[in-house]
Amino acid sequence: MPTTSPANTALPYDADALARTADAIAALTRELAALGWTPATSSNFSARLDERHAAITVSGRDKGRLGRADIMVVDFAGKPVATDQRPSAETLLHTQLYARFAEVGCVLHTHSRVQTVASRLYAPEGRVRLEGYELLKAFHGNTTHEAAIDLPVLPNTQDMPFLAAQVERLLDAGPLWGYLIDGHGLYAWGRDIAEARRHLDAFDFLLACELDLRTLRR
Amino acid sequence: MPTTSPANTALPYDADALARTADAIAALTRELAALGWTPATSSNFSARLDERHAAITVSGRDKGRLGRADIMVVDFAGKPVATDQRPSAETLLHTQLYARFAEVGCVLHTHSRVQTVASRLYAPEGRVRLEGYELLKAFHGNTTHEAAIDLPVLPNTQDMPFLAAQVERLLDAGPLWGYLIDGHGLYAWGRDIAEARRHLDAFDFLLACELDLRTLRR
Amino acid sequence: MPTTSPANTALPYDADALARTADAIAALTRELAALGWTPATSSNFSARLDERHAAITVSGRDKGRLGRADIMVVDFAGKPVATDQRPSAETLLHTQLYARFAEVGCVLHTHSRVQTVASRLYAPEGRVRLEGYELLKAFHGNTTHEAAIDLPVLPNTQDMPFLAAQVERLLDAGPLWGYLIDGHGLYAWGRDIAEARRHLDAFDFLLACELDLRTLRR
Amino acid sequence: MPTTSPANTALPYDADALARTADAIAALTRELAALGWTPATSSNFSARLDERHAAITVSGRDKGRLGRADIMVVDFAGKPVATDQRPSAETLLHTQLYARFAEVGCVLHTHSRVQTVASRLYAPEGRVRLEGYELLKAFHGNTTHEAAIDLPVLPNTQDMPFLAAQVERLLDAGPLWGYLIDGHGLYAWGRDIAEARRHLDAFDFLLACELDLRTLRR
Repeated sequence: MPTTSPANTALPYDADALARTADAIAALTRELAALGWTPATSSNFSARLDERHAAITVSGRDKGRLGRADIMVVDFAGKPVATDQRPSAETLLHTQLYARFAEVGCVLHTHSRVQTVASRLYAPEGRVRLEGYELLKAFHGNTTHEAAIDLPVLPNTQDMPFLAAQVERLLDAGPLWGYLIDGHGLYAWGRDIAEARRHLDAFDFLLACELDLRTLRR
Repeated sequence: MPTTSPANTALPYDADALARTADAIAALTRELAALGWTPATSSNFSARLDERHAAITVSGRDKGRLGRADIMVVDFAGKPVATDQRPSAETLLHTQLYARFAEVGCVLHTHSRVQTVASRLYAPEGRVRLEGYELLKAFHGNTTHEAAIDLPVLPNTQDMPFLAAQVERLLDAGPLWGYLIDGHGLYAWGRDIAEARRHLDAFDFLLACELDLRTLRR
Repeated sequence: MPTTSPANTALPYDADALARTADAIAALTRELAALGWTPATSSNFSARLDERHAAITVSGRDKGRLGRADIMVVDFAGKPVATDQRPSAETLLHTQLYARFAEVGCVLHTHSRVQTVASRLYAPEGRVRLEGYELLKAFHGNTTHEAAIDLPVLPNTQDMPFLAAQVERLLDAGPLWGYLIDGHGLYAWGRDIAEARRHLDAFDFLLACELDLRTLRR
Repeated sequence: MPTTSPANTALPYDADALARTADAIAALTRELAALGWTPATSSNFSARLDERHAAITVSGRDKGRLGRADIMVVDFAGKPVATDQRPSAETLLHTQLYARFAEVGCVLHTHSRVQTVASRLYAPEGRVRLEGYELLKAFHGNTTHEAAIDLPVLPNTQDMPFLAAQVERLLDAGPLWGYLIDGHGLYAWGRDIAEARRHLDAFDFLLACELDLRTLRR
């Protein structure tokens, strides 16, 4: 059980909220690892703590064995807060969403086989069009399968500020719950952990269907 | 343990029967969720309580974590009974089967990848012909693999009364244990929960084989 | 714990041996069910008890929930012994192997997706040639990957004596650890349960590789 | 709990270190078996004990049920040490890596479907080129997805000294964390068990993506 010790009161965030959030992220991460969506210690996961901080997975840990100690706090510039642990190189891609949208509560980044293959295949077109599926209703704001969603595919780069700027341009263009990076995987988000997971599951499922149909319709 | 309290005696259904049925539906649902057949909180499951009521999953819940409290009662017009919980929009597709066939005891609706892909692929033909499989004997009434079964594929729509009317026309045409909806998934049913599950498993397995053979025989 | 009661002493087989064997079959069956190799209550499994009896799964049970009570005794003509339970229609395909080969200790019949698809695809050729795989060494008697194995594919029929006669012809032709039936699945056997399982796993794995290579090499 | 008995002090290796290492190998092996990467008792796994000994899985055991007693000690010529258990025929392919590289701490050899199919498919080219994937950063020494890695594919043979000599030639050519053997599977290694597992996971994932893209881009 988390307790608020005197030491904790000096922290710029609520230590109890961090404990609860870290447990929730760790539990979700173990579930996604069991699906094979975090190969070779890849992927990272975060949730908003307050209007200036997010909890995020520490870089390089085995995602199938994650515990509370594998979650750290960063500010919305992606800098570690009150810790000497190292966040993922891609932390900025999480925090830019919290900084821009007050309603974003959780960001999930995974590397499933389907996501990685789709990102390579659709990179030349720069997007995957998803239409005709009942499951499009899983995305917050969609109420019918008659909607179509374009999932953007960004070129990969190790230059995170450049990549974050590309994402900002996507976000300028309209409502979005996720994007792919070529050869890399998926970012998906939502207003809370449950919604981010629902969006992640829906994107992965729909990409899997698209890949199958591409093979079968040939 | 369920008990029949004085309050319960005022209910138009047997509260003990509901408790037993809800536990059985929740257990089945968790199994199907573990197979990945209920992505993004989709899918819904029901079982007959009596000649006027069915128990059905509440809309939008995570199917991998379902408990007794996630199951509600509806009448055969699909209206909630003695609850303010919201049933799935597709409740009518369940209850029309209970209303029409006294022997139907359970209706299962899932969204597996195989079911969704097959529904898209075979929608133009309006059916999937299944023949030459020993597993055709899994369907109640079939005693040989020499039978052929046509699994109908209906166009998708958000207009449930219209969709239900399309299903009635299918049911008029002859014996049936399931149908697909384009881009959506499978409905399967049986005389009890075990038989509905057997029919569901058989349809999914046979659709998977058909998809594989379509790729391999090209 | 099994005990040899006076009643048991009248049985034509060793009740303790049955209890041990039934537990082993049930445990193996639950493992194979978890792999999805027994869809829709299909598949059946047996092990030799003595020179006249085998233990075999009762027909139609959910293979993921099998316990000792779901295993019965048959003689080598496939007839139930000291029970009124009903064995699978395919019992004769098990017992003919025990009757013919004193060294056969276990027969496993499964319906995996790979087995069923391969059986349909290779039925016109009547066999699947397996060669070039290290895993060919998994079959008792093979010491090198340079061997080639032909896995026969028999036409399906509901006429078990006819099917059993076809199998006898295969067995006349030379050493064999398994065969496919078109649209139906795989029979595999071994000198004990562990070896039968190893042969089953090897056949399924090699068939899966063959299907993948057929798609990829096209 | 391991204890250092007087008998143990006569062993040429640290019995406590063996106990800890054996438990770690057995746990890892059960995880890989659950993924289906060790079909039909295939595959073998080892970790360095000291500058002259390694712990390795005993040949032919069911990898899903491995315990401490299924791990034995060999020297770097591949000979059993202080045991009459039989090591795998392929032990030399493990120990040559420990003998040559002081920093190698763990060698993993698996037979996944993806690895086996890729080995057959790319054998004529003698290598699989892996490029354009973020996950290339999982390999120790790589810091960018812009690197390309060639995973060599060796012809299969039952002549282990010959095969080991082929591997030596590969190792002469430059840094390497793994290779395939045609029709057989993958060898991957690392400085410790966690790194070897990360390299193994990354190779399998990237091979899976390559196979999918080969089908989808056709």
